[in-house]
Amino acid sequence: MCHACSVSAAPSRPSVPPFAEPVCILGLGLIGGSLLRVLADTGVRVFGYNRSAGTVEQATAAGYDASSDLDAVLTRAARTDAVVVLATPFTALPTMLDAVAATAPNVLLTDVVSVKEQVAELVATHHPAARYVGGHPMAGTSASGWEATDPALFRDAMWMVTTHDDTPADDWLTIARLARAAGSYVVPAADDAHDRAAAAISHNPHLTAAATAAVGAGESDLALRLAAGSFRDGTRVAGTAPDLQRAMLEANAVALLNTLSATIDRLTAARDALRDTGSVSVLVDAGHRARLAYERIAAAAPEPIVDVRVGEDGWAEELRRQAHLARVWM
Amino acid sequence: MCHACSVSAAPSRPSVPPFAEPVCILGLGLIGGSLLRVLADTGVRVFGYNRSAGTVEQATAAGYDASSDLDAVLTRAARTDAVVVLATPFTALPTMLDAVAATAPNVLLTDVVSVKEQVAELVATHHPAARYVGGHPMAGTSASGWEATDPALFRDAMWMVTTHDDTPADDWLTIARLARAAGSYVVPAADDAHDRAAAAISHNPHLTAAATAAVGAGESDLALRLAAGSFRDGTRVAGTAPDLQRAMLEANAVALLNTLSATIDRLTAARDALRDTGSVSVLVDAGHRARLAYERIAAAAPEPIVDVRVGEDGWAEELRRQAHLARVWM
Repeated sequence: MCHACSVSAAPSRPSVPPFAEPVCILGLGLIGGSLLRVLADTGVRVFGYNRSAGTVEQATAAGYDASSDLDAVLTRAARTDAVVVLATPFTALPTMLDAVAATAPNVLLTDVVSVKEQVAELVATHHPAARYVGGHPMAGTSASGWEATDPALFRDAMWMVTTHDDTPADDWLTIARLARAAGSYVVPAADDAHDRAAAAISHNPHLTAAATAAVGAGESDLALRLAAGSFRDGTRVAGTAPDLQRAMLEANAVALLNTLSATIDRLTAARDALRDTGSVSVLVDAGHRARLAYERIAAAAPEPIVDVRVGEDGWAEELRRQAHLARVWM
Repeated sequence: MCHACSVSAAPSRPSVPPFAEPVCILGLGLIGGSLLRVLADTGVRVFGYNRSAGTVEQATAAGYDASSDLDAVLTRAARTDAVVVLATPFTALPTMLDAVAATAPNVLLTDVVSVKEQVAELVATHHPAARYVGGHPMAGTSASGWEATDPALFRDAMWMVTTHDDTPADDWLTIARLARAAGSYVVPAADDAHDRAAAAISHNPHLTAAATAAVGAGESDLALRLAAGSFRDGTRVAGTAPDLQRAMLEANAVALLNTLSATIDRLTAARDALRDTGSVSVLVDAGHRARLAYERIAAAAPEPIVDVRVGEDGWAEELRRQAHLARVWM
């Protein structure tokens, strides 16, 4: 089958396509809870599960449809053919996948976890017959839990949707529309390319922030008292709950080992140059160029991917190719 | 002589003492220009010098008293017995100090440079008879130049004032009042303690930000497109002009070598643990504790130093001792 994906090269933002299907969200922390809120607030039929009765009470008191009865929630998802979103921490995924496989085996499944290859492996192990299209909204804060949820969290964020050559076009379009309904842009990518990118721009910064914070605090209380903007911003993500950081980082160990080694190599070269020549120019110049490149991309209006019809021959490859040119599907 | 410094333990903010002396600022970039603006805006008689005629034109057009004639500016400073503030990059200090020694040898001199031991050495070499009390406002942005100046830059910032046992009490109080007139709190410290602290919470974060940025940009354009908050905040200071970063970092090489080595050690231990055990818990936990310690200190209302009279026996030592307890002079 064949869908018009985007035909305009104009950077103006198109209207969000309607999302008529019911949505079931498993896990109502920062990401899952924010998704529940933005979808409900825009009229989507959405309901959610959370293990903690306290979180469910908070969500229900705020007017949202939530329950701590996983079996009942999944039975409802199966009955209504809802799109099921895995939004728990990585470590809870096997339990969730077993439950989905047992109670709602035919639903379309996606996730919002920050790694993709390992999630795909878990899906293959725990629910091999799943209709699964991975996803990852590039949005978050160092806060966590229902209190931190924000329906505007995904607005204009980049939402990676797994795009492989064997991804069913209909399912892909449904998950892409879900991301758009939440207010995000869709970035098509393969799992491995996503995981390398996430290691480089999300997971590695968690470790450099942690090291920067620990070294700063290790000096003296005077140091923390004098700390200003560079320390405040550079260590912000170190404040994220440690178990959430570990679940995210350790699930992407292979890619993270590479970026962490590259970071150590650059810092070691800078230390040796500072010691031997008194100069840190190589690292400072490289960091400055990189930051400017990032600022250019972040400031540019997202461009629509052009001349691709999802479902036609080679559509997935062409979407990935254009996303690598820093275009995004809108 | 003997001055009441602070007697109240209440955290309420005292009124700012008046600053009646004229002030002469050498260098009108982000820090010097912002200082010119906030002092002038609050009625202080302040004038400035900048090498660049363009900056002087901008400052003059905005209604401030600025000139690119160094000799005329210093002649005026000598005639009016102005407090002279060195606000150029570190690399321009020898030229400035030679000029001050030649034209305004008796003025009270301070600076706003981010290292203190090396500045003190330059003063001793180029103007050994100077009345000099060092300073460092912990404020800044990644922008630079007159366009980036902001009279609110120093509001509620921590302004380190060099506090040695042989610091003349009158001169110390004058520089402390200058910092208060700009809207900052005063933190007394010795040069070496300041430089270690600045390496840990300011200079080291510049290098970790640079490495994080370079590794992120080295992955792919897809990575930069997916970059979100952790990368944006964690690499912000890498956008600072490279020559300003180098001047700042390389002037604090000894202390920076120590913090950089400590950073490399922590990251290397994390990499080895991730490779061998799959866990990053040690670094993530240490970073989290450090960030929380910082947030506690940053959120606490600054406490006044108590029961010290500047000028009495042991005043400098007692001020430094209390500042190390995370109290600040107000």
